[in-house]
Amino acid sequence: MKEYKLPQGFLTSGLNCGIKKKSYDLGMIYFNQPYRVIGFFTTNLNVSYSVSLSRENIKNPISAILVNSGNANCFSDDKGYQDTKEIVSKLAGKLDTGKEKILIASTGIIAKKLPKLKVIRNIPKLIENLEDSPVKFAKSILTTDSCTKIISKVIKFGKKKVTITGIAKGSGMIKPNLATMLAFILTDAGIDLGAFRKNAKQAVEKSFNSINIDAAESTNDSLFLASSKKIPLTKKEQKKFFLELQNVMIDLAKMMVKDAEGATKFVELNIKGARSKREAKRLAEKISGYILFKCALYGNNPNLGRIVAVLGQAKIKLKEEDLDIGFSSFAKKEIKISINLKRGKYNWRVYTCDLTPEYVKINAKYN
Amino acid sequence: MKEYKLPQGFLTSGLNCGIKKKSYDLGMIYFNQPYRVIGFFTTNLNVSYSVSLSRENIKNPISAILVNSGNANCFSDDKGYQDTKEIVSKLAGKLDTGKEKILIASTGIIAKKLPKLKVIRNIPKLIENLEDSPVKFAKSILTTDSCTKIISKVIKFGKKKVTITGIAKGSGMIKPNLATMLAFILTDAGIDLGAFRKNAKQAVEKSFNSINIDAAESTNDSLFLASSKKIPLTKKEQKKFFLELQNVMIDLAKMMVKDAEGATKFVELNIKGARSKREAKRLAEKISGYILFKCALYGNNPNLGRIVAVLGQAKIKLKEEDLDIGFSSFAKKEIKISINLKRGKYNWRVYTCDLTPEYVKINAKYN
Repeated sequence: MKEYKLPQGFLTSGLNCGIKKKSYDLGMIYFNQPYRVIGFFTTNLNVSYSVSLSRENIKNPISAILVNSGNANCFSDDKGYQDTKEIVSKLAGKLDTGKEKILIASTGIIAKKLPKLKVIRNIPKLIENLEDSPVKFAKSILTTDSCTKIISKVIKFGKKKVTITGIAKGSGMIKPNLATMLAFILTDAGIDLGAFRKNAKQAVEKSFNSINIDAAESTNDSLFLASSKKIPLTKKEQKKFFLELQNVMIDLAKMMVKDAEGATKFVELNIKGARSKREAKRLAEKISGYILFKCALYGNNPNLGRIVAVLGQAKIKLKEEDLDIGFSSFAKKEIKISINLKRGKYNWRVYTCDLTPEYVKINAKYN
Repeated sequence: MKEYKLPQGFLTSGLNCGIKKKSYDLGMIYFNQPYRVIGFFTTNLNVSYSVSLSRENIKNPISAILVNSGNANCFSDDKGYQDTKEIVSKLAGKLDTGKEKILIASTGIIAKKLPKLKVIRNIPKLIENLEDSPVKFAKSILTTDSCTKIISKVIKFGKKKVTITGIAKGSGMIKPNLATMLAFILTDAGIDLGAFRKNAKQAVEKSFNSINIDAAESTNDSLFLASSKKIPLTKKEQKKFFLELQNVMIDLAKMMVKDAEGATKFVELNIKGARSKREAKRLAEKISGYILFKCALYGNNPNLGRIVAVLGQAKIKLKEEDLDIGFSSFAKKEIKISINLKRGKYNWRVYTCDLTPEYVKINAKYN
């Protein structure tokens, strides 16, 4: 089994608290001292109580992030937010920190009450089990995912070693603008918070905002990035670090699409020659969310007509001689498609997958 | 077998011309003298050569409508439009009418060249076979449809009998704003063209613009309405006639959804209490096109969370106590769902269906 490292300054744990029958459903990231965290949340207007509370607390230095899976902690009843605050207070008490210094994230079924006592009862064990490995935590955040999603990268600057560890979940209800995803990026790089935020924002655009499984935006998406700043970096080193950070985020995002519910194909879709970046992104989103295109992918069927139709539906008028579509071998498991509109100089890339009978079956049963 | 009547003044025919292997693929509606036709076309910006030509000709009195299935006559090569004009000229010659008096509609695979000679060669036989029954014509316009879609209604005004006959095709690539559908509504009611147009437009909103199978808008949608005006009607009788016309159109639209590719459920979705008609329509379209909602329908799974999520994605913020969702028994083949947003007085109704593994299989293979 691969060994994954956590950066200095962080510990994690994961266990089963009883939301799910057997598999892990509760996890925590512990910060050895409070650090500032950068957060990105869903743009869905109906959000979980966890997202609401984390949006409040993220302005403070953070001591821990609590995560549960198996329940979205969203739209259950009017006590939901109160319950969430109570859970967070209990954890803060046990960690001897302020309740405003805790973040929380949830993923799972919407509109079912989170069993708060199961969570609260397991907080002591969660703290006791903290360890220098992301594996159990990575397990505790999964829902329909078929595998854990961890990337850990060590970057060497002379004798200095900086670690970036990314842990994520997500395999359905995923479209541009985050996804039904949770992701946590931890590092010990000595970077400035402002530069961290700016670079993270750019990287989000190219990673988690550039994947589309089913054009569905969830109520719970959360991405948190934190650094313990243990390893001081020069400006030049920081520049290299941010490039690596972006690669970690893109790789995590791709892992989600590769693990997409029922999917048999991983597709890189490149829109080229658009009039604006906005147009390129809009089309990439439209095409990658278009049911008929996704069925054609499943059928190894390079159905040009469907691309013509969806472009017209998106109000792009084409001439026969202008459209330039390139496919890399269509029956492979990984496909590259580029669509050159020849009307401008802007490009955008998204990662997507096919729509399969298995996806429908999984989501018909999900309850 | 049910007997279907055509209104006075029209004949139709249908046959196999060789676009498809065996089943009918070429049909014609013949007008015993030129009548004005009301037309509605796709809003997709990439349209078939047939749509382009019909948009031109529809300003003239019309002598015949030629229809082919099995080929969309769209985005094949730069000769496509020229070929279409040639076909129409040949038909006009044989009918001894002007080439500007012919409409044409096509449905089938996009981006393959229409074999014009097969069509032209069969024009004489098409004329020879004209008859006072819509059945063969109704067969000739089908693609993935599993059955013909005909509604024929006789309305009695004292001794006067007015007939409305509607013939349609459509079972996939269907969303509000027409659909991959062709529909032809013929009548002998003595109605004023202006009133006909106005009432048809209203009826389209409630029928063909209110169905959603897969959120896909085609390049070929065409709806034509024509009256031979053989039976004079009073103002009061016309009012009743237009009500019946709307019912015929709604019934035809429902037939498409009931025959939707792979579908196992027919769903009437009512959005209530929206702030505006526009909002109600927008949400009805969003929900009825939402992949995860459609999977839940297939699974007999009243997954409230998915409705909460899609409403939030559509920028509707909800409170737990405000949302009011009603289901009629979920495991039945026909389901009624109403969603009351309690924020205004506007309602909208659409007809939709589930997304099934079978739908994916059909569209993976369609080539």
